[in-house]
Amino acid sequence: MPEPVAATLLVQCPDRPGLVAALSTFVAVRGGNILAIDQHVEVESSTFFMRIVWDLARFNVPRAEVPAAVATLCEGEGLAYSLSFSDVKPRTAVLVSKSPHCLYDLLLNEQLGELSGEIVLVVSNHNDLRSVAEHFGKPFEHVPTEDRAAAEMRHRELLAGRRVDGIVLARYMQILSPGFVTEWSGRVINIHHSFLPAFVGAEAYRQAKERGVKMIGATAHYVTADLDQGPIIDQQTVRVSHRDSLSDVVRKGHDLERQVLSRAVRLHHERRVMVSGNRTIVFE
Amino acid sequence: MPEPVAATLLVQCPDRPGLVAALSTFVAVRGGNILAIDQHVEVESSTFFMRIVWDLARFNVPRAEVPAAVATLCEGEGLAYSLSFSDVKPRTAVLVSKSPHCLYDLLLNEQLGELSGEIVLVVSNHNDLRSVAEHFGKPFEHVPTEDRAAAEMRHRELLAGRRVDGIVLARYMQILSPGFVTEWSGRVINIHHSFLPAFVGAEAYRQAKERGVKMIGATAHYVTADLDQGPIIDQQTVRVSHRDSLSDVVRKGHDLERQVLSRAVRLHHERRVMVSGNRTIVFE
Amino acid sequence: MPEPVAATLLVQCPDRPGLVAALSTFVAVRGGNILAIDQHVEVESSTFFMRIVWDLARFNVPRAEVPAAVATLCEGEGLAYSLSFSDVKPRTAVLVSKSPHCLYDLLLNEQLGELSGEIVLVVSNHNDLRSVAEHFGKPFEHVPTEDRAAAEMRHRELLAGRRVDGIVLARYMQILSPGFVTEWSGRVINIHHSFLPAFVGAEAYRQAKERGVKMIGATAHYVTADLDQGPIIDQQTVRVSHRDSLSDVVRKGHDLERQVLSRAVRLHHERRVMVSGNRTIVFE
Amino acid sequence: MPEPVAATLLVQCPDRPGLVAALSTFVAVRGGNILAIDQHVEVESSTFFMRIVWDLARFNVPRAEVPAAVATLCEGEGLAYSLSFSDVKPRTAVLVSKSPHCLYDLLLNEQLGELSGEIVLVVSNHNDLRSVAEHFGKPFEHVPTEDRAAAEMRHRELLAGRRVDGIVLARYMQILSPGFVTEWSGRVINIHHSFLPAFVGAEAYRQAKERGVKMIGATAHYVTADLDQGPIIDQQTVRVSHRDSLSDVVRKGHDLERQVLSRAVRLHHERRVMVSGNRTIVFE
Repeated sequence: MPEPVAATLLVQCPDRPGLVAALSTFVAVRGGNILAIDQHVEVESSTFFMRIVWDLARFNVPRAEVPAAVATLCEGEGLAYSLSFSDVKPRTAVLVSKSPHCLYDLLLNEQLGELSGEIVLVVSNHNDLRSVAEHFGKPFEHVPTEDRAAAEMRHRELLAGRRVDGIVLARYMQILSPGFVTEWSGRVINIHHSFLPAFVGAEAYRQAKERGVKMIGATAHYVTADLDQGPIIDQQTVRVSHRDSLSDVVRKGHDLERQVLSRAVRLHHERRVMVSGNRTIVFE
Repeated sequence: MPEPVAATLLVQCPDRPGLVAALSTFVAVRGGNILAIDQHVEVESSTFFMRIVWDLARFNVPRAEVPAAVATLCEGEGLAYSLSFSDVKPRTAVLVSKSPHCLYDLLLNEQLGELSGEIVLVVSNHNDLRSVAEHFGKPFEHVPTEDRAAAEMRHRELLAGRRVDGIVLARYMQILSPGFVTEWSGRVINIHHSFLPAFVGAEAYRQAKERGVKMIGATAHYVTADLDQGPIIDQQTVRVSHRDSLSDVVRKGHDLERQVLSRAVRLHHERRVMVSGNRTIVFE
Repeated sequence: MPEPVAATLLVQCPDRPGLVAALSTFVAVRGGNILAIDQHVEVESSTFFMRIVWDLARFNVPRAEVPAAVATLCEGEGLAYSLSFSDVKPRTAVLVSKSPHCLYDLLLNEQLGELSGEIVLVVSNHNDLRSVAEHFGKPFEHVPTEDRAAAEMRHRELLAGRRVDGIVLARYMQILSPGFVTEWSGRVINIHHSFLPAFVGAEAYRQAKERGVKMIGATAHYVTADLDQGPIIDQQTVRVSHRDSLSDVVRKGHDLERQVLSRAVRLHHERRVMVSGNRTIVFE
Repeated sequence: MPEPVAATLLVQCPDRPGLVAALSTFVAVRGGNILAIDQHVEVESSTFFMRIVWDLARFNVPRAEVPAAVATLCEGEGLAYSLSFSDVKPRTAVLVSKSPHCLYDLLLNEQLGELSGEIVLVVSNHNDLRSVAEHFGKPFEHVPTEDRAAAEMRHRELLAGRRVDGIVLARYMQILSPGFVTEWSGRVINIHHSFLPAFVGAEAYRQAKERGVKMIGATAHYVTADLDQGPIIDQQTVRVSHRDSLSDVVRKGHDLERQVLSRAVRLHHERRVMVSGNRTIVFE
């Protein structure tokens, strides 16, 4: 028996009374059963955020007409919204360079059914990880980045060809163009190997070792035009000591990176993350 | 300007569609603004749990009539419920023996406005901690427990005299009678010095040291007639190693105990904890 | 330039003054440079434990004669000891059933140079993970366990054939015979999917969910004849809540299991773990 | 029976072979029993650090002559060193402003015998915490800081008068003069309310909230003339989310601050911390 289809609706608007009632009543009067509901009011900006998930099994609007019904509701109420269905898996491309640890973790998590989305493409500026992608039965594309304009064009082709919804930079050591980043705003997740805002840039572990911190971290964030400054989705830390050489720090960091990145990607796939300015609301 | 009063309603009933809509609409049509809403469906028992908090500032039911309005709603819908108001602080008694660390933490947290409730009484089977209670301006009562029936009678008198809502056992090294525990069901919080269900009983740190575990824990739980078996509210752990002597383990444990207990008491005071059989739902 | 060879000596004996001086002087007078030294005295049993690592680069005993020189020292002093060299990697076999997550982690860690040992064999009672072993270039052997005596005989053949030093049970869902366990005492590492001593046996996640704990754990330990009772090498925990379904608990647990197991295997490979009765000394 | 006296020797020098042997032999030939030994070689600077603790019970140098014997050894070997005895408790002054949480924790830890040193003085630029000091039987001095030169002079008098060895800034919201800091180099511990190097300055929690980090931290460090830049002794982090208001962040931060500060002070008192440039070696 297939799992029943659920609809997930994210809404965002200036806060006012009655929003929860309006949205939950919309579902209830049509026979839907609410599976999850979360709301948040950001006090500073007086903005309302909500995530509501309901079961379509007894919902008396036919699946094909749900988008129009939701549009009518949300436009009537003046809500910015996003609607998705549980049987349409997010289609994600993973960009990598030479480090395999995050890629393995993402692919294995998908295989175990723990990623809530589908990895449809692996792209790299090197050939080293081709065998990893192929081992998991994923298409792999080598796109050299010496000619950056050509690389971006090729990326666009590949993403369009595979109908990709979102991009994960799994230790991809290249910078995307501002134009590309803007176009994919809120849909590109990067893993940075520090506890941001500490230690931006490529040498984060070396900087951490030199500063003598007693914990290191990893940060998953949406990519914006400002390097390592985008909205943070998740962070994690682990203890280090004077005994840890730089390679020990890197080893511990690898373990953090893959945990934090896989978790952020899962949360994004499950549409639990909403962006508010340079911050995120994460409905866990 | 005083903070506006908020109402918090906890409900519990067999799951069915429409409950969120019914409750949020009840608030919305009367002009209330929902400040927080959380729900959970326990799949195994098909039970619905909800916590809804709304602002009474523009709620068009006078404060004194809110209980009756909520009763009408909940009885009409067949919901078990509990209603409280943010300007009526929970009144808590703390029972201690000789260890001061949890008592200090609770009293200091209250003083800092971080406990969301009021400690109205400190009771002990020893006199050691009298000065701690008095330093924080709290009444202290010494109730010896050699005669257990007399002690329980005295406890009842003191609790009634101070109109106590809930009891916190802050390393109180005495066992309460089954009758008393039943009467105060869901309102007595204990801190146990292990990661339950590991190491029940009084010698938990010694047992942990002897077993050679690499982490120790602390557990806050509601007290039931079965020792150390009640619904768990919160747990926390910390690393230990072979280098830690028993007194190091105890020191690390003290720090866990007070954190876990204060957090559990705050969650309980904020009415974020609901009991379901031998488990809890904690709406953080 | 190859890294210079280091010797690691573990010693254990009844505590008495002068042991550190005797051992460090043995190294110093022969021109060795101490890279790491750690000692521990277990007070209860008055037992001395030490790990000393020194550089053989300028050590004036030829490599081939070091074992005899160390034997003379340790026998003269009445020390139980174990000597190893950094250029002789521990040879490890991994036993698995159907779950891939720990196996991937071990193999990837080895590939990244983070395991301090060599996986020379993967054995399973199923064929599911053959492709994982092969992807990493490792021999895979399918040994069905319906006939337990035949399986054990086949295991012995394979371990001998590959000159295996230690065994890792990476979610191997079969029980080894007491005779086998005794023979390999202190050299078989298992990962158990709970915070031992809580929740022994096969259904640990289900038990944790049913008990309503607020954290789950994983434990790596040496295998003894008593199921889930052997000396603990490492443990880790992670928060769970009422929102986590059993499959969420399993997902979080998977992440813990592989971290804890890989870390324990690395510590064991680096000869940082000494067994003392039913506990371990871990020189990190 | 009093606990036997132990000597703790910290040494630091350019690395060379034979140092562990020389120091441990010094102890052994005089009948001392080594209770703890730890060493570290900082590879970048080729510097050797060691902490050795031995029992004076059967050490055949009279207590009064130990300093001279150690001086002869260390000067002969060209070692920078520091010697202390377990029966001479470090004498510490705590400087505070208005926040009580760290002060309570330090004083309570001392009372529980968990601080390994003695708090001999509490100084504040306000009078708010006088009753806290007095509750624990500690002298309290109010030193207003409007006239900074006068305040510093008064601080020096008080510190000298109480023969203070070290200073703890327990959320002391004033800056010490560069001259004072230099004079007390390596002996003044501050708690900063962020995960340094992120969020320096007074508004760390606000900055953390604005940046939208998913964890906050606290850092204990030695004070240097560069604000929030001194050698880090300990750090800790805790999760936060969009649900945490600024006051929730502050509450969680308070709990971190006192844990991290008390731990750092204990490590310092036990002479487990050595400074190397802008980093620390912490022999736990």
